[in-house]
Amino acid sequence: MEEDPNVNNGRHPLREKLWRIVFEAETPSGKVFDVVLLVAIGISVVAVMLESVDQVAARWEVQLHVLEWFFTILFSVEYVFRLWLVRRPMRYAFSFFGIVDLLSCLPTYLSIFLPGAQSLLVIRILRLLRMFRVLKMVQHVRGADVIMRGLMASRAKITVFFFAMLVFAVIVGTLTYLVENLGEAVRGRGFDSIPESIYWAIVTMTTLGYGDVVPVTVPGKIIAAFTSLTGYAVIAVPTGIVSAEMVRAFRPNETTDACPSCGCHGHLPDARYCRKCGERMGNGEE
Amino acid sequence: MEEDPNVNNGRHPLREKLWRIVFEAETPSGKVFDVVLLVAIGISVVAVMLESVDQVAARWEVQLHVLEWFFTILFSVEYVFRLWLVRRPMRYAFSFFGIVDLLSCLPTYLSIFLPGAQSLLVIRILRLLRMFRVLKMVQHVRGADVIMRGLMASRAKITVFFFAMLVFAVIVGTLTYLVENLGEAVRGRGFDSIPESIYWAIVTMTTLGYGDVVPVTVPGKIIAAFTSLTGYAVIAVPTGIVSAEMVRAFRPNETTDACPSCGCHGHLPDARYCRKCGERMGNGEE
Amino acid sequence: MEEDPNVNNGRHPLREKLWRIVFEAETPSGKVFDVVLLVAIGISVVAVMLESVDQVAARWEVQLHVLEWFFTILFSVEYVFRLWLVRRPMRYAFSFFGIVDLLSCLPTYLSIFLPGAQSLLVIRILRLLRMFRVLKMVQHVRGADVIMRGLMASRAKITVFFFAMLVFAVIVGTLTYLVENLGEAVRGRGFDSIPESIYWAIVTMTTLGYGDVVPVTVPGKIIAAFTSLTGYAVIAVPTGIVSAEMVRAFRPNETTDACPSCGCHGHLPDARYCRKCGERMGNGEE
Amino acid sequence: MEEDPNVNNGRHPLREKLWRIVFEAETPSGKVFDVVLLVAIGISVVAVMLESVDQVAARWEVQLHVLEWFFTILFSVEYVFRLWLVRRPMRYAFSFFGIVDLLSCLPTYLSIFLPGAQSLLVIRILRLLRMFRVLKMVQHVRGADVIMRGLMASRAKITVFFFAMLVFAVIVGTLTYLVENLGEAVRGRGFDSIPESIYWAIVTMTTLGYGDVVPVTVPGKIIAAFTSLTGYAVIAVPTGIVSAEMVRAFRPNETTDACPSCGCHGHLPDARYCRKCGERMGNGEE
Repeated sequence: MEEDPNVNNGRHPLREKLWRIVFEAETPSGKVFDVVLLVAIGISVVAVMLESVDQVAARWEVQLHVLEWFFTILFSVEYVFRLWLVRRPMRYAFSFFGIVDLLSCLPTYLSIFLPGAQSLLVIRILRLLRMFRVLKMVQHVRGADVIMRGLMASRAKITVFFFAMLVFAVIVGTLTYLVENLGEAVRGRGFDSIPESIYWAIVTMTTLGYGDVVPVTVPGKIIAAFTSLTGYAVIAVPTGIVSAEMVRAFRPNETTDACPSCGCHGHLPDARYCRKCGERMGNGEE
Repeated sequence: MEEDPNVNNGRHPLREKLWRIVFEAETPSGKVFDVVLLVAIGISVVAVMLESVDQVAARWEVQLHVLEWFFTILFSVEYVFRLWLVRRPMRYAFSFFGIVDLLSCLPTYLSIFLPGAQSLLVIRILRLLRMFRVLKMVQHVRGADVIMRGLMASRAKITVFFFAMLVFAVIVGTLTYLVENLGEAVRGRGFDSIPESIYWAIVTMTTLGYGDVVPVTVPGKIIAAFTSLTGYAVIAVPTGIVSAEMVRAFRPNETTDACPSCGCHGHLPDARYCRKCGERMGNGEE
Repeated sequence: MEEDPNVNNGRHPLREKLWRIVFEAETPSGKVFDVVLLVAIGISVVAVMLESVDQVAARWEVQLHVLEWFFTILFSVEYVFRLWLVRRPMRYAFSFFGIVDLLSCLPTYLSIFLPGAQSLLVIRILRLLRMFRVLKMVQHVRGADVIMRGLMASRAKITVFFFAMLVFAVIVGTLTYLVENLGEAVRGRGFDSIPESIYWAIVTMTTLGYGDVVPVTVPGKIIAAFTSLTGYAVIAVPTGIVSAEMVRAFRPNETTDACPSCGCHGHLPDARYCRKCGERMGNGEE
Repeated sequence: MEEDPNVNNGRHPLREKLWRIVFEAETPSGKVFDVVLLVAIGISVVAVMLESVDQVAARWEVQLHVLEWFFTILFSVEYVFRLWLVRRPMRYAFSFFGIVDLLSCLPTYLSIFLPGAQSLLVIRILRLLRMFRVLKMVQHVRGADVIMRGLMASRAKITVFFFAMLVFAVIVGTLTYLVENLGEAVRGRGFDSIPESIYWAIVTMTTLGYGDVVPVTVPGKIIAAFTSLTGYAVIAVPTGIVSAEMVRAFRPNETTDACPSCGCHGHLPDARYCRKCGERMGNGEE
């Protein structure tokens, strides 16, 4: 077990205790702290969301303002505490979450001295990222690990699939661009450029189908129909891969026992003799 | 076997018989009652539906009115019967289905004394919920139990997936809100607020794509394309999990018992003799 | 082997030979006939399709007219032949395909005596159904049988799923109807009646998302978001069921041999003794 | 091992070395050449894309022009090199990639002598196809081969499914065409012809749902709802097939050999000794 650089061994007991609450999630008080923080972040993010709605902002201006300052001060106190508790404050201050924590409260203070609320709001929304620190809890939720394991095992294949779909979209998009502009180039109805046509191809392929860009020529419509049919049918491939990966993950049909003689692994559950050296193994009943 | 509080043992035979018809689904008459009730609910719900269509309501006003009163009286009689038949009428009256049953007929009576048809219609539609009582029959339909079992086994994982998609939607929605309003904040074209942008993100992610909110800036379109591609590819994960769960549920067809004579594994559940050495095995019934 | 009522044994050799060509698909000439018929039906259906396009109909009027009469006479000859070849002409004439065959050529003849081309076109399109007779060939295509087997095995479950989705759509549709018309009933924007709202719910649930009916109120949008997320995630269930059914269908891990002593089936591939009676079986090597 | 017709054995060492760089991907210099070429193609394709955007073309006209000529000369040099390096230049010149390589640079030269930039742009986009030559590298990426294997194994079944969906679309499209034009034939709202209705049916079936063509009659909406529900549920079938194919592809981990001593089955491919009796087996290498 290697030493954690953040652990404050040999320091003041109160500081040690506070450190456990703020940074650890296994202890009861640490869990309470995490839940309170999660709720606080949740409410503050909802407040920022509601502020962006004109009617709400006009009607509940004062309340939102009070809430905003309440959370800003709360998060500032939390930031100072974190800075004080960790062994290497500089390291924390310049870490990813340290910067996010600072940016979560700074904009509100700056708004007193500086005008331009819109750009400040942009930064405050980064509080959302703070949720991820607490959401490390999610990994303890039953089922999340299986999803993660499945995603990890299929990562390479899904990436290749993703890339192949992009290449397909580029080809289909370019083709449709040519086809739609072949006779008369009518600008302003969606196929004005190749990038825009690729955007349309992706929208069609994934069966999203906004309808903001729609083919009007006969060959364009035929391409659209085949592209959507392809997208519709091809989804079976990544799904099949992930399914097979999951089926395999769910069925650990090989023991973890090693042969006592040659040390080889991967024996079947009913093996009594090592398949490599023929040695008698312990797990067979007789 | 614990006593059912609704069972009327030791009471009037007619009441007992009626009770069996109204509350039990296994007897022939109980089945007939359930089917008749299901049809009655079905027709009354269709009648309520049709009443909401202006042209139909104008043309078939009298017929719909007669139908409405016919079903209201029918359901009232049924309600009174249920109240009379159960051992503890109060318990039924304040149960979920008791309240639904009452609300299914009350609005029509109230409409004589009170104006405001619109709000009453709101309540009458609750008849739909009565269908669920009878739809307990569905569980006997071959296949429904497998779907339910699959849904139950994958419940935790699908919930986590659902939640992860919501978090993803919040992040993508906020990002698109910022991006679409970066240069000039053009109000009234769909990205007016963060909640509206999250709505757009969900519509995009699930490849629903209404087209009522559509990105117009270049980065907004790029985000839309990647969001739909992600939603398109990521669906493979819950599907894979449920598939693996199903494959496991479908294959409980080998016991873990070993033959006492030759020790071979993998016997079928109904095996009485070892398939390898022909020896009598313990798990067969005789 | 029971006698086929259509077989013309003991009749004129020519008639016998023609019968083989027209009704059987296994002989070379029968195959040629089927392919020619399929092509003819295909072209005639395309001709009917093109006739419905105004520009094409105006420009190629004569050619389409000639083609129409060519195929009508061809199909008439075929119809008469079939009537003459089968043992029981009446039975064929009133069978499903007999009526379809008749309706495939009748409208063109009627169009000479009667006006009203539009309604006649309606009937001619039934030629499409004739394709199904020839498409019995498809079942010989590698892979089609697996799809059919999978569909058949999962039929009950998919039906239950289909029905559950409809019930879900009715509930969501009604709820959205109420929610969208709660404050002010603005007619003419899509949620005018409950059936229309159910149509919207299905369009949303299946992530079709035309955009012709779109919620405008906040709760309506929330319902739309959750409905599409549900539809998006729940598709995993039927897919998982079919996948498990397919995995099972692909793995025939039981032999078709019966025990010579007790006649029981379903033995494992390596079984040497019957698991039911312990009798020695033939398929074990020794 | 048969002789590769492109191998230049017994020729000038420099030419031999260059040949290895240009045509082989296994050597380090060959890998560098491939990556450089891929990047060059990528940038040139992006340049062609950007040229199609009016604003970009107006602003960066000179830069794009320079880039265009740089890549044209680069690809010309590459083309001449390939022609010089291969043993049979004619064979390469008339091969698929030879023609693509020529067409990748020819249009820019022609644009000096000939006007009509639009049609030339059409040809230059073929550079995209050159990517496929280099993308042979993708097959070395972990996971791509599994996707390819899955696609290949399921090819026949997916083709049948694809065709069945097309037939379904023709039938649904024609039916909707009839239904939507039954009462009054309102031209110009999407169901003007059968081909257009089939386009709508495919858009609906794949849950693409542009919204450019939308049913307005009640039966049309019912058909749309059922078509989308069918498309939504039926996707389970190809997905299930591919999943089962993948599960099978992922599990080739047991041999069909039996132990010569005890006759037990199900040994792992690398087994040298029976796991049941410890006897030496034939299939192990030593």
